Amino acid sequence: MRRVLVTGASGFIGRHVIGALASRGWDVHGAAIDAAPDGAPAVAWHRVDLLEPGVVARIVTEARATHLVHLAWYAEPGRYWTSRENHRWLSATIDLVSAFLDAGGTRIVGAGSCAEYDWQAGHCDEQATPARPATLYGACKLAAGVIVDRLAAQAEASSAWARFFFLFGPHEHPDRLVSSVVRALLAGREAPCSEGSQVRDFLFVKDLADAVAAILESDVCGPINVASGSPVSVRDLVMRIASRIGRPDLLQCGARPADPVPRLTAETTRLTREVGWRPRWSLDEALAETIDWWRAS
Amino acid sequence: MRRVLVTGASGFIGRHVIGALASRGWDVHGAAIDAAPDGAPAVAWHRVDLLEPGVVARIVTEARATHLVHLAWYAEPGRYWTSRENHRWLSATIDLVSAFLDAGGTRIVGAGSCAEYDWQAGHCDEQATPARPATLYGACKLAAGVIVDRLAAQAEASSAWARFFFLFGPHEHPDRLVSSVVRALLAGREAPCSEGSQVRDFLFVKDLADAVAAILESDVCGPINVASGSPVSVRDLVMRIASRIGRPDLLQCGARPADPVPRLTAETTRLTREVGWRPRWSLDEALAETIDWWRAS
Repeated sequence: MRRVLVTGASGFIGRHVIGALASRGWDVHGAAIDAAPDGAPAVAWHRVDLLEPGVVARIVTEARATHLVHLAWYAEPGRYWTSRENHRWLSATIDLVSAFLDAGGTRIVGAGSCAEYDWQAGHCDEQATPARPATLYGACKLAAGVIVDRLAAQAEASSAWARFFFLFGPHEHPDRLVSSVVRALLAGREAPCSEGSQVRDFLFVKDLADAVAAILESDVCGPINVASGSPVSVRDLVMRIASRIGRPDLLQCGARPADPVPRLTAETTRLTREVGWRPRWSLDEALAETIDWWRAS
Repeated sequence: MRRVLVTGASGFIGRHVIGALASRGWDVHGAAIDAAPDGAPAVAWHRVDLLEPGVVARIVTEARATHLVHLAWYAEPGRYWTSRENHRWLSATIDLVSAFLDAGGTRIVGAGSCAEYDWQAGHCDEQATPARPATLYGACKLAAGVIVDRLAAQAEASSAWARFFFLFGPHEHPDRLVSSVVRALLAGREAPCSEGSQVRDFLFVKDLADAVAAILESDVCGPINVASGSPVSVRDLVMRIASRIGRPDLLQCGARPADPVPRLTAETTRLTREVGWRPRWSLDEALAETIDWWRAS
């Protein structure tokens, strides 16, 4: 049985990724600073702080995995764009990947971000769009990606750097866009939004998790966008939520400042052609599932 | 008087940079793991190992400089392309720059490399050519550059990332291309070279040092190529050396393996237009000076 170590396994993305990998038949070892969350898939669990000295070497030795999906990073909303915690996670990432390769690991998928691109580009292509991050978070993610890529190549292993765009779904942080609008409308509260003309690529987290698993099973190397390929305006997105909940009257479009980046969308040719992966959920199906989850929780 | 802290001050580049800055009227503080070398310009000297815990904070406090030229890095010939020492220098760079900005530093010039570019591109432009390093060294230099850029921007300071191409001149490591050919021919030994059709941009180290000083005094931000803008083939370069020494018979072009990168040259529009800097030495003048230096040493 193929064994994979997944870091950040208790997070919004991680808990879905371990489920996707387990359902594809992987022997999954999850590593996280928290205990395995209630309702998470039953996998081998390592409760560790990857930032503590010596821990990355220990977790690699304990898990003895041939594959690595590295998702752990600092993600405190409002702070992660500028925090020096990004430096610590860059160092931990280099140390973890070095230890994994030293132990004979053969394949790595790391978590990158659309924040690595030049946001002036609008539409982001892995080859053609300059990597020119506007934030310290984006700079440290870009740094981690290029270093992991070369470390893996030197060790004759392979690695892909999955650049995530915009996400939503069960277990998302309650203050993020989709979560906060769903929660407000379900509670009968007004939901202040920006004017909403900015266009983004939103992907359902269950689809994203399956895409990560598919990338791990492929031999694609280097940066690869992970996105739906079907961008929408934020206004369209929140209107769909409001219609489904039946409270469009509570949306306050324009109550929040306009977003300075008009378009941030993903070229998904690598994902669809080289990995052969496409989303299974339509936007409306995914929103329905997300709304149902918040209603039940 | 304006004060600048220069790291790597005892190195091939550093000792020329402290001279260039001193001659432009800067109050120069040099930091290096070695004592000030014989014949180096008389500047305030801090003998420190930047990789030791706490040292970067101490050197920043001691030097109290408003400007920083960060040149120190791992540079052992034959090893630096793949060594994990690159990780340690990336971390030290982030720590140094963070401490410098925390102390109120206003302007940084860091040492980047043409190894950050995609070498398939041939001619390298700061904006248009993808940063896609072929080596771990190039990846860690790229990483340092994007992180320094964002750290400075967050602190409302300014930074430039000087991407060096190919260099030669007095005090170069004796095993590098120009040094080794000059030494062999002066000693009457045969000099084995590659076939030499590869085209490169070579800059005299005294010109490079003055360019770094000019960049420091400018307000140019982000990556900037530091090169002559006058590329030559390696064959042309070594023939000029051999003709000047009068021993073309000792050149063995083709005795070494061909270089896999046919062209690696620099677009220098930013340097010439935005900084307003041009080389002062012709290639032949610079080679003559270099040969004289080796002859005397």
